[in-house]
Amino acid sequence: MKIAFCCTDTRPEPWLEGLKAELPDAEIAVWQPDAARTPTAAGLPAQPRAASSFQADYAVVWAPPQTFIDEQTQLKALFNIGAGVDALLKLRLPPSTLVVRLDDAGMAVQMAEYVCHAVIRYFRELADYDVAQQEARWAYRKPRRRQQFSVGVLGLGVLGSRVAQALQQFEFPVNGWSRSPKALPGVRAYTGQEELPAFLNASQVLVNLLPLTPHTENLLNRQTLSQLPAGGYVINVARGAHLVEEDLLALLDSGHLAGATLDVFRTEPLPPQHPFWKHPRITVTPHTSARTMRDETIAQIAGKIRALRAGQPIAGVVDPQRGY
Amino acid sequence: MKIAFCCTDTRPEPWLEGLKAELPDAEIAVWQPDAARTPTAAGLPAQPRAASSFQADYAVVWAPPQTFIDEQTQLKALFNIGAGVDALLKLRLPPSTLVVRLDDAGMAVQMAEYVCHAVIRYFRELADYDVAQQEARWAYRKPRRRQQFSVGVLGLGVLGSRVAQALQQFEFPVNGWSRSPKALPGVRAYTGQEELPAFLNASQVLVNLLPLTPHTENLLNRQTLSQLPAGGYVINVARGAHLVEEDLLALLDSGHLAGATLDVFRTEPLPPQHPFWKHPRITVTPHTSARTMRDETIAQIAGKIRALRAGQPIAGVVDPQRGY
Repeated sequence: MKIAFCCTDTRPEPWLEGLKAELPDAEIAVWQPDAARTPTAAGLPAQPRAASSFQADYAVVWAPPQTFIDEQTQLKALFNIGAGVDALLKLRLPPSTLVVRLDDAGMAVQMAEYVCHAVIRYFRELADYDVAQQEARWAYRKPRRRQQFSVGVLGLGVLGSRVAQALQQFEFPVNGWSRSPKALPGVRAYTGQEELPAFLNASQVLVNLLPLTPHTENLLNRQTLSQLPAGGYVINVARGAHLVEEDLLALLDSGHLAGATLDVFRTEPLPPQHPFWKHPRITVTPHTSARTMRDETIAQIAGKIRALRAGQPIAGVVDPQRGY
Repeated sequence: MKIAFCCTDTRPEPWLEGLKAELPDAEIAVWQPDAARTPTAAGLPAQPRAASSFQADYAVVWAPPQTFIDEQTQLKALFNIGAGVDALLKLRLPPSTLVVRLDDAGMAVQMAEYVCHAVIRYFRELADYDVAQQEARWAYRKPRRRQQFSVGVLGLGVLGSRVAQALQQFEFPVNGWSRSPKALPGVRAYTGQEELPAFLNASQVLVNLLPLTPHTENLLNRQTLSQLPAGGYVINVARGAHLVEEDLLALLDSGHLAGATLDVFRTEPLPPQHPFWKHPRITVTPHTSARTMRDETIAQIAGKIRALRAGQPIAGVVDPQRGY
């Protein structure tokens, strides 16, 4: 069995070591474009070979170039090392190749903690207390009532479900919106395009955890964000392309929205001159809400490769038509 | 049945209305010291009477003066509208009067959210990302591993138990310390003075939720805080007198402790010149981690008064010897 590793911006050595440890009989190579094709550092368990002569059965990928797909003609499955497969699905892929997304692997808990931190920080006005501290000012604010503070989660996949569950522990009313009907305990469910306005209307805080597909691109725009209640708050932890950035700015400036916490952007890294950086009511983090945890990810992918080889079904196979 | 209301710094009208609605047959009066003894605003359901001629069966109190206790000689029970009864127990109280603390009543969820926010903020280095945002700097940090990030909760009463449970949802290893043995699911239990060093040694973050008693005063001092691992973090949401403030400052300055989030102080309001305000690694909030929720508190106290009158047992009766 041969495995190709093709992850941009990722140091390959620890991944190769981990995969080799999990799958000792595998031959594993780092794919590199023709021009730079050289063996990787010596001393690794698997000596990489020139990729053109190396036809992999499986590939572990993050944002691979089209050339990789075109060269690797024997691939049975592509394993994405992140939750979102939007970049992968933009490539021309052979129809027989499975696209497999990462299931949780330590990301759901990170997402729950990032979102809960942002929701609590807004609900409890803790950023305002930080300002008061800078002024050595002891002044407390009348507590808001959580019964009137509904949080709406857009997208109820592995990450969205976990976030919805985590928020309930703090007794916020939680709404969930998904394309197809989903029943989660304690979550008020809204389904499909028709119920989106009612969902938005009922959500004081909007948490976006949708997959990025042609249907969801630009979904957070002036029209939809205007349907949030006055004083609404936006948390985007999915993809930058979900959000029409100038529409968010306009609704913050008009006073309709109270603020936003954004971890993803249309252009990443967020350019230094981008207005989000200095906006007093926008919190920016550098796409760090849920990082890929290497060990958990390697274990999950290796487990799925073993299952596929044994002819067993695996979780996380993407429907290319649906986009997730 | 007569009820006296004696809560400093609290506007009495909404409390009187709420208590009257819950207990329509009660006569309710606001206690005021002799000099200022006047009826409260007209139009209230219960017309208060001069307190000296008014001998209450029950009292709803926050930090009452000794004069109040001395004048009200018929009290069957004192209901504290906060969780900590340390101020109340400093008074000379007749032995036959029950001291009843507030059980939860909407405070535990607030405490869980305040502590989880502080723990996540430190664990995920979100304050550092705020600084990076001010500099328009896109730079992420290697994620810490939560398996090595144990949180220790000092005190496992109503609030401490809820906090310990909330932290587990984020998959932090949770240690709990209490004076008498307490078994909580998923919490590694440490008991009594002998096990305090081991508890401290095993806790990267220390959350103080102890009652303030002569045994726990100054418990967070140079000796105990030195037993936290290097890079330890302190969250004090109990009472200011638990913490020897200069010892915390010394351990922050020596680099042993990484930071602290403090909601309570030896002197409140925290004086404007106090070094905590400007310390770069201390977060100060104005005793706001868990505010008394009026409606829930009134409902709970009214329920307990009804139970006592029916001869039934009630929760939250304080043992004056133990101090909580």
